Amino acid sequence: MNEINLPDVLAEVNAVFDDYERALTTNDVPVLDRLFWDSEHTLRYGATENLYGFAAIQAFRQGRPANNLEREITARAITTFGRDFAVANVEFCRTGSPRIGRQSQTWVRLPEGWKVVAAHVSLMG
Amino acid sequence: MNEINLPDVLAEVNAVFDDYERALTTNDVPVLDRLFWDSEHTLRYGATENLYGFAAIQAFRQGRPANNLEREITARAITTFGRDFAVANVEFCRTGSPRIGRQSQTWVRLPEGWKVVAAHVSLMG
Repeated sequence: MNEINLPDVLAEVNAVFDDYERALTTNDVPVLDRLFWDSEHTLRYGATENLYGFAAIQAFRQGRPANNLEREITARAITTFGRDFAVANVEFCRTGSPRIGRQSQTWVRLPEGWKVVAAHVSLMG
Repeated sequence: MNEINLPDVLAEVNAVFDDYERALTTNDVPVLDRLFWDSEHTLRYGATENLYGFAAIQAFRQGRPANNLEREITARAITTFGRDFAVANVEFCRTGSPRIGRQSQTWVRLPEGWKVVAAHVSLMG
């Protein structure tokens, strides 16, 4: 595993990351669902909840208010390993809040495409 | 990438995860350093800090008080993908605190061994 940030792989992951971010801020739940791995092993630690399995993550999204999802990404770091694995980490802020948010995702290229297999979102401090 | 949780790979990652946890709670900084990828791309979002690059993570550890590191892991989920990638996620609590901690790590098998390439630690809520 010496192939860090192969340009074509990095471009692919940046593209799916952008798809995810757009879907998140517009509450496009079908796209969010499509970009998460449909597995009992998928997990998402959120600001106020720990969700295990694709079904729990999907149910959370369906029950979440669709307002105030807009955010500004203030730092972004995506790193790829080989052709099938990547980590995407961003810092973000929301209008009216002084707190710094952080979002970490691990992406894997599965037979059905690039998917988030684990995610962690939190507010610092 | 169809090889989820190959038993020998899962055993390897569980072993390095246990090494990390032991080093964390005993403040064995050399082992913690050894288990993180020595790269400018490595990052660690902590409860109160966002650290970019191995050097920043190392400096943080050297400056951190060594007390009150003990913790109880209350949930643990490790998943491997193929032979070289894994995610390790745990929930934890500390004596005297009602807050639930979460730790997410992405592990990659590099030529020098299994390394954490990205980590995120936070307290929920």
